[in-house]
Amino acid sequence: MCVLGLGLIGGSVMRAIAAQGRDVFGYNRSVEGAQGAIADGFDATTDLTDALTRAADTSALIVLAVPMPALPGMLAHIGELAPKCPLTDVTSVKSAVLDEVAAAGLQERFVGGHPMTGTENSGWAAGHAGLFTAAPWVISVDDHVDPVVWWMVMTLALDCGAAVVPARSDEHDAAAAAISHLPHLLAEALAVTAAEVPLAFALAAGSFRDGTRVAGSPPDLVRAMCEANAAQLLPAVDRIIDLLSRARDSLDWDNSVAELVDAGHAARIRYDRFPRSDIFHVVIGTEHWREELAAAGRAGGVIRSALPIRDSPR
Amino acid sequence: MCVLGLGLIGGSVMRAIAAQGRDVFGYNRSVEGAQGAIADGFDATTDLTDALTRAADTSALIVLAVPMPALPGMLAHIGELAPKCPLTDVTSVKSAVLDEVAAAGLQERFVGGHPMTGTENSGWAAGHAGLFTAAPWVISVDDHVDPVVWWMVMTLALDCGAAVVPARSDEHDAAAAAISHLPHLLAEALAVTAAEVPLAFALAAGSFRDGTRVAGSPPDLVRAMCEANAAQLLPAVDRIIDLLSRARDSLDWDNSVAELVDAGHAARIRYDRFPRSDIFHVVIGTEHWREELAAAGRAGGVIRSALPIRDSPR
Repeated sequence: MCVLGLGLIGGSVMRAIAAQGRDVFGYNRSVEGAQGAIADGFDATTDLTDALTRAADTSALIVLAVPMPALPGMLAHIGELAPKCPLTDVTSVKSAVLDEVAAAGLQERFVGGHPMTGTENSGWAAGHAGLFTAAPWVISVDDHVDPVVWWMVMTLALDCGAAVVPARSDEHDAAAAAISHLPHLLAEALAVTAAEVPLAFALAAGSFRDGTRVAGSPPDLVRAMCEANAAQLLPAVDRIIDLLSRARDSLDWDNSVAELVDAGHAARIRYDRFPRSDIFHVVIGTEHWREELAAAGRAGGVIRSALPIRDSPR
Repeated sequence: MCVLGLGLIGGSVMRAIAAQGRDVFGYNRSVEGAQGAIADGFDATTDLTDALTRAADTSALIVLAVPMPALPGMLAHIGELAPKCPLTDVTSVKSAVLDEVAAAGLQERFVGGHPMTGTENSGWAAGHAGLFTAAPWVISVDDHVDPVVWWMVMTLALDCGAAVVPARSDEHDAAAAAISHLPHLLAEALAVTAAEVPLAFALAAGSFRDGTRVAGSPPDLVRAMCEANAAQLLPAVDRIIDLLSRARDSLDWDNSVAELVDAGHAARIRYDRFPRSDIFHVVIGTEHWREELAAAGRAGGVIRSALPIRDSPR
């Protein structure tokens, strides 16, 4: 396996896969990241041509773990040096990545992925082999995906200790807007609002720390994921502005925030009780396997041990 | 000491004070809460008249730990049965409590307080003696406060393991709106927004869980604190709607959320680096002691060991 980009996510994938005894090598643009990996005993280089040639020679699964802005350049190199390799990514916006991959002519061997985890830290040093333990790892089941590549990416995620959630790219992105990108914008806005009130930082405790934790994320990463998902993020921002505006007016006119608070509490309780189930009945590559997986993922299903694949896929 | 209301906060005060070897007894309206305390070896009753008579007989410091809506009735009883007792509270909105206390004619012996801690759970069973450890505990330094009562309330907070932050009631409330009440409304609105997106709960991870944690709080408590602080909460909600609306337009027109994300990250970093210092130079009861404490609290100062009090206060 070949990991391109050894930051928090890519570096953690490399550690987790190596811990399973699987062969893995990696590339990192910065010398610092590559040397950090080498110093920790991993097989890493800053020579992209070398890494991709080796990937092509060994038919390695390539894991794209670079930030969105670096993606087009990286895909151009892959198209030149390793166009037949199975390909996945660990980026947060699936439709935007899929568009770039298709533009580079690499769609046929590509299955997008998104491990839903992270911390406010970044870089090789921030990663660890346990980062994905029990975390959801979305794997795209768009119409085009190849069963064999899908099986390889599923195995990667399971080897990292994650719980695989199959989902269509567009549905993933709408969900990511609501549960990741919008919370980031709220955290930023809350931090700004509180910073303007003299005593606020002196008193800030649990709900402020929790509510602004992700505002500690590197701004370029937050921008990259929000801006790449603008189409799905805009309606989510509109919705929350609408909810807050109505609560504001109700507080002003009737001294009540009952409607929002009751609805929010009910929604959070529904989330706490959201049923999780294991997907085990789908055979990859059989008729309608993609649709069946998408439906199961939507209903809370996750894959915790490898699904079988049909003998002669397609 | 007499604690009125043995929920999460009052019950934790009772445990923390008893752990210091100090005499403490309590009242709780519900039989369940009082029996929980008694079963755990504490001195508790459901008889308010009994508790207040005993407080008056022993000149006990009375700690108001009842929800805002129960406050006027409770103050009427105190005015009748224990009007000379020193009085404090552990409620989240200081101006509203001060108004109620003044309306009951009990302002002279009252010093408001607010331990800035809590969990999404409530009731006697949720409390524990360590709840206040290292947490900020605001004690009001409004113009009227009496030095001797102030010293008693400071000692209560320090005995609970808290770090005392002296602050004016109005400044406290503006800060609480920004760092507590607004985050609650954001959590509620985020939970509602995500609940409407099919795949969202299936994928929700860290930033959603953190961002909606306080939406698990009992709705009546959230309503009570937000609605009691409407005057300070409204401008905070207006400000965050404004920030989100500008980010939304910038995302729509220029595909950029740079302004908000950069400002939010900078604010969060400022918070992480906010200087904390120990207040030790103020003698309670000397000239301008209240103003000096308010200024020190605003600058990040906290009281970690008891300040001296002037021999003959006033």
